[in-house]
Amino acid sequence: MTEGRFITFEGGEGVGKSTQAKMLADALAARGLPVLETREPGGTSGAEEIRALLLHSQGEWSARAEALLFAAARADHVEKVIAPALDAGKWVVCDRFIDSSRAYQGGGDTLFDDAIMAIHQIGSWGLLPDVTILLTANPAEMRHRLAARDGDGADRIGGRPLAYHESVAARFRTLAASESERFTVIDAAGSPEDVHQRILQSLAPLIGEGG
Amino acid sequence: MTEGRFITFEGGEGVGKSTQAKMLADALAARGLPVLETREPGGTSGAEEIRALLLHSQGEWSARAEALLFAAARADHVEKVIAPALDAGKWVVCDRFIDSSRAYQGGGDTLFDDAIMAIHQIGSWGLLPDVTILLTANPAEMRHRLAARDGDGADRIGGRPLAYHESVAARFRTLAASESERFTVIDAAGSPEDVHQRILQSLAPLIGEGG
Repeated sequence: MTEGRFITFEGGEGVGKSTQAKMLADALAARGLPVLETREPGGTSGAEEIRALLLHSQGEWSARAEALLFAAARADHVEKVIAPALDAGKWVVCDRFIDSSRAYQGGGDTLFDDAIMAIHQIGSWGLLPDVTILLTANPAEMRHRLAARDGDGADRIGGRPLAYHESVAARFRTLAASESERFTVIDAAGSPEDVHQRILQSLAPLIGEGG
Repeated sequence: MTEGRFITFEGGEGVGKSTQAKMLADALAARGLPVLETREPGGTSGAEEIRALLLHSQGEWSARAEALLFAAARADHVEKVIAPALDAGKWVVCDRFIDSSRAYQGGGDTLFDDAIMAIHQIGSWGLLPDVTILLTANPAEMRHRLAARDGDGADRIGGRPLAYHESVAARFRTLAASESERFTVIDAAGSPEDVHQRILQSLAPLIGEGG
């Protein structure tokens, strides 16, 4: 039996995670591998309801309550979708996972990061990806992409100031540096196909192709 | 400044918690004490949304996801309502709190009870009541009250078999026995006024009246 693999995509908004997750899932499937593509928050009907609750009442939750809501959605997603797929030997490609909770709700607070990981241990058996692909863009590029998507100017994106997104990006880089055996940092500059090729190259050892 | 006190009511469905919580809150207010009466799950607009999510999709969540959802609602309720009231010196009377999570989601599993308490530490600073009043009724009485309320026979109450409610009641008794310094077990037999008098008598030392 093929052994399942768990690959997650992380990074700030507008950096191309969902596009790249889809391109990778297609590329793995084209190699004859059994693939499941999914995303967070969401992935189950219950988790989608929590996603709606979080988006609908954005900003009203404390960081603690928000972290617990994301953890509840993740517990449902892991138990009903991700763990069974891995057990069945599938390659699971997930757009955002635990590291998004750490970068967004964790706020760079080490104690709170420990708390988020403790909740993850309880809710989802502490499941970690085999590989986490962190897509990064320089601030100017990010600003440009987000402004183009939002259309409400470059100062506030998704209701948050640009400085917020830059601090999230910095927290992702810190996580990647401290857990370098799991993280692969990929420059998101250039065309989607360029980025996709960088990702495939970095994953060659995992896929079993020459690096 | 008066020091705030935190009193919770626990017990199975139909045992009279909300009636007794209201009677106690009124009795404390009649003594000139500043009182806040609240309930779980709920107590804030966000927590009420989670309550609706839990009731609406009852039975679809895993015990872990359900425990995290209740913890998220509790974190919001504690941070926005309970903690500020206690800080302001109020007597907070709450219908259900952490012990309901332990009795309902905990399922009598010691490891999972530890997990629920760990989540509570993270979400709500581990806040525990000064006094928890556990209302108990014998199985025959409970069966009678629940059947009268539900009107769908005595075998299934709120979509659950009677045996489920009896096992919940047993778990409440176990919690009360193991944390006897915090719990006060009150027999819920008799009229609401009878039960109320028993509760007032048990709380006399806390209220500062002769026992």
